[in-house]
Amino acid sequence: MRITGENLIGSGYSAKGKQTFKGYNPLTNEELGETFHDGSTEEVDRAMDMAMDASTIYQACSGSKRAEFLEAIADEIEALDEKLINQVQLETGLPTARLIGERGRTTGQIRMFAELLREGSWVEASIDLAQPERTPVPRQDLRRKLIPLGPVVVFAASNFPLAFSIAGGDTASALAAGNPVVAKAHPSHPGTSELVGRAIIRAAQHTGMPEGVFSMIHGNSYTPGNELVMHPLTRAVGFTGSFQGGKALLDLAASRPEPIPVFAEMGSINPVFILDQALEKRSSALASQLADSVNLAVGQFCTKPGIFVVQENKELDPFLKSLSEAFSQKVPAAMLNARFSKNYHKHISEIESRKEVQFLHRGQASDESSSAVPAIASVSAEDFLRNPSLHEEIFGPFALVIICQDKLQMLQLAKQLKGQLTLTLMAESEELADSGDLVSTLQQKAGRIIHNGVPTGVEVVPSMQHGGPFPATTDSRFTSVGTAAIKRFVRPVCFQNWPETLLPEDLRNSNPKKIYRIVNGDWTNEALR
Amino acid sequence: MRITGENLIGSGYSAKGKQTFKGYNPLTNEELGETFHDGSTEEVDRAMDMAMDASTIYQACSGSKRAEFLEAIADEIEALDEKLINQVQLETGLPTARLIGERGRTTGQIRMFAELLREGSWVEASIDLAQPERTPVPRQDLRRKLIPLGPVVVFAASNFPLAFSIAGGDTASALAAGNPVVAKAHPSHPGTSELVGRAIIRAAQHTGMPEGVFSMIHGNSYTPGNELVMHPLTRAVGFTGSFQGGKALLDLAASRPEPIPVFAEMGSINPVFILDQALEKRSSALASQLADSVNLAVGQFCTKPGIFVVQENKELDPFLKSLSEAFSQKVPAAMLNARFSKNYHKHISEIESRKEVQFLHRGQASDESSSAVPAIASVSAEDFLRNPSLHEEIFGPFALVIICQDKLQMLQLAKQLKGQLTLTLMAESEELADSGDLVSTLQQKAGRIIHNGVPTGVEVVPSMQHGGPFPATTDSRFTSVGTAAIKRFVRPVCFQNWPETLLPEDLRNSNPKKIYRIVNGDWTNEALR
Repeated sequence: MRITGENLIGSGYSAKGKQTFKGYNPLTNEELGETFHDGSTEEVDRAMDMAMDASTIYQACSGSKRAEFLEAIADEIEALDEKLINQVQLETGLPTARLIGERGRTTGQIRMFAELLREGSWVEASIDLAQPERTPVPRQDLRRKLIPLGPVVVFAASNFPLAFSIAGGDTASALAAGNPVVAKAHPSHPGTSELVGRAIIRAAQHTGMPEGVFSMIHGNSYTPGNELVMHPLTRAVGFTGSFQGGKALLDLAASRPEPIPVFAEMGSINPVFILDQALEKRSSALASQLADSVNLAVGQFCTKPGIFVVQENKELDPFLKSLSEAFSQKVPAAMLNARFSKNYHKHISEIESRKEVQFLHRGQASDESSSAVPAIASVSAEDFLRNPSLHEEIFGPFALVIICQDKLQMLQLAKQLKGQLTLTLMAESEELADSGDLVSTLQQKAGRIIHNGVPTGVEVVPSMQHGGPFPATTDSRFTSVGTAAIKRFVRPVCFQNWPETLLPEDLRNSNPKKIYRIVNGDWTNEALR
Repeated sequence: MRITGENLIGSGYSAKGKQTFKGYNPLTNEELGETFHDGSTEEVDRAMDMAMDASTIYQACSGSKRAEFLEAIADEIEALDEKLINQVQLETGLPTARLIGERGRTTGQIRMFAELLREGSWVEASIDLAQPERTPVPRQDLRRKLIPLGPVVVFAASNFPLAFSIAGGDTASALAAGNPVVAKAHPSHPGTSELVGRAIIRAAQHTGMPEGVFSMIHGNSYTPGNELVMHPLTRAVGFTGSFQGGKALLDLAASRPEPIPVFAEMGSINPVFILDQALEKRSSALASQLADSVNLAVGQFCTKPGIFVVQENKELDPFLKSLSEAFSQKVPAAMLNARFSKNYHKHISEIESRKEVQFLHRGQASDESSSAVPAIASVSAEDFLRNPSLHEEIFGPFALVIICQDKLQMLQLAKQLKGQLTLTLMAESEELADSGDLVSTLQQKAGRIIHNGVPTGVEVVPSMQHGGPFPATTDSRFTSVGTAAIKRFVRPVCFQNWPETLLPEDLRNSNPKKIYRIVNGDWTNEALR
């Protein structure tokens, strides 16, 4: 199974684009052998046309047929075995244990969606029976459920080359919802993308899915991605990456003659508020817990805690000392690509040049171009509030401690925060109960609020909310992780006075799958008499 | 209770804007007495600031407290009694029976949301319990529910001066969701708006709601509305009206530094497809049913069927004749304002000037500036497809019959349609079963698909979907009618490892309201042990 560097259009391979690029090994700083071809305009067109053709057939597939397809994708990914792990490692430098874990997360969430489809209640079926005797006008029979939107474009992320990439959560949820997917591969792991893309296509073939239900387009330049977003047949876009990237796609989609939704997860500084009693009781444990969380995956998680908000307190100095020690024990490590390391060190140097910021620890690396050095600094709340640039996410193993004079200033700071994926409160239960104002402010700013934990570690479960107010994401009403991610790619349709035998199964009186439905306003999983 | 023409800012009255305007009686073509004041920039600011202040308090109110508020609004509106009906009639010329019906719909849907809040399952509560024993890392307790977005701006519509206006579905659903509302009154019924706006404020006062939970701003010019959409504290916008109006607000919202969702219902031509057997069996009944639907409320419903798609058939001529007769029995009537009548007749004249369109009936009125004349015309499918302007909605009592050569052309026409609120199929059950391609195409184009009925008449029930693909609305994933309309103004938040006693009631183990929740992936309304 040689990597060919071609785009995957339906079940065919195609390399018509003139732009080419190569993969890159961030550990050795060397280009890899294979040449990859950016998708051409014609290839983008072809992929979207095939997706549209597949759409009608695919959306008519039952939930259990779609579940078979998803499970086959998980099986095919697992069957790639060491070949896949080796390829990802070559292109990302991530350690084997992490990659095996991430593969498990990837296949796990694909199978979770399969299970969701088999159970079936996710379609939000609702039935209001006719009232032919009602005056002055009879009430018609009305039945409503969610249906797929149509072809979805998924942009792969760089920082999770499996779980948020070609067969990641966006692809899994869009396919589960009944939409064909055209994936835009990330140029930082193109060979991995090809392996996984082909696995999806094999799964589609084995389970009798229509050609075009999945295609994959490479793009080292922005052009193929922009063309996918602007294509008239595209119905929605999923993206995980930088604010600049996500906002550009959002603006592009808004400029279409027919606007479409863009679900972009654009990162966050994930502030951690440490209240007095918590700091007093466990400053050293907190320092070590937070240093671990910041340094996970070389600080490249979108849930990395980027600021720690504390207030003047007798335990503050010991806490800062513990943090400094904890960071000094972290070793510099390679980021996912050289551009990330370079940007990281540029940011750190920029912060170092500010006199209002004090570094608690700042590691040194022999060659900063490949390895990111862990760093931790502190600043007063006043200076933080005065400098909007300190509110920006820094991708890499850095965090900033913000020192407030009192609880009022902490609340003021909370009110100034932009939208976040997560907000964390380190607090004893009693002081949490006494912090109603702070909690209600933070709740307005984030998708997930955490008590005594770290934001890294995003469980793939129905109750997860991975998304938050702008600029954390472009649409705070949806999540990109967990079963609810499927809701991004569907819309409701109401059938009025429709013959029972022609209704979708979910809306029939018989309720064969015993799904939960709202019948005349009441929840029930019973059949209708 | 004199009408003062002021803006309602919190519980105060304010008239600082320099722009003023007067109401208008469309039956007499005369200006009404009172002078109304466009909201000034400072008044818009004040209303939004107060809404934001109210937000924290209001969202902390329990569902049953909010339900009391909603019910008090319905009571206050009913208490206005004849005074309200007379005022609406003065400003819109709508008949008493219709207005009494619309008032019932308005208070009915407000009370429906109150009931939804009392039951409580709408918050989509979900719980995944901790797994402290899990390896390698324990699973944290995760609990998720919907919370309010914050201040919502509601644009009142002209064509339903009660049900889609100041206390209409958008206001009711946004308040139900826990958001303060700042309503932009429609200048075609400003006195009605003031009466209803004051009723809402009285209800807020009687039920102890925070000041600023509701404000109302007049605007005959676009400025106050645009300022409301651009205001940094605005979190979402609801709108019902023209495509031009809705699209302008959508673009405005997308240009904000922090984009916000705009839910604009922008109308539709609501095509009716009449299949052969149905036409053969009941051409005369269909003609009369459709003529009635087109002429309801002088063709000013957003669900007015605007095109009837038929194919060459021996019953076609009798059908056209019946249509012509049915339309000739409809009398010209006043539209909601003079601008509407003028636009309507401009459109009709423009269509009359096209040689490819044949008029079946075109009424004459003594004074076309106030009364709209019912009209029906026909065109070949070929010509319809060639003329994009014929695909546009015409507000008023006009419909166009489109004659296809065969079923294939009918399918082709279906594929060319833009997004619609509704699509209707007049068909015998057997021919409906044989029209899979047509049905699946139409399902992709609309929010509601109707079998053997008319699109006018939008039931306010959980299964209603009043919304459809662009350009029918700006967001096909939501409805503006029915209980699900509440979902536009909320977003999920996840509480991780939160102390039981500090959790919102909906997420506590005890489940005091016995709402339906997803617990560890399963639906249940039980408490947790």
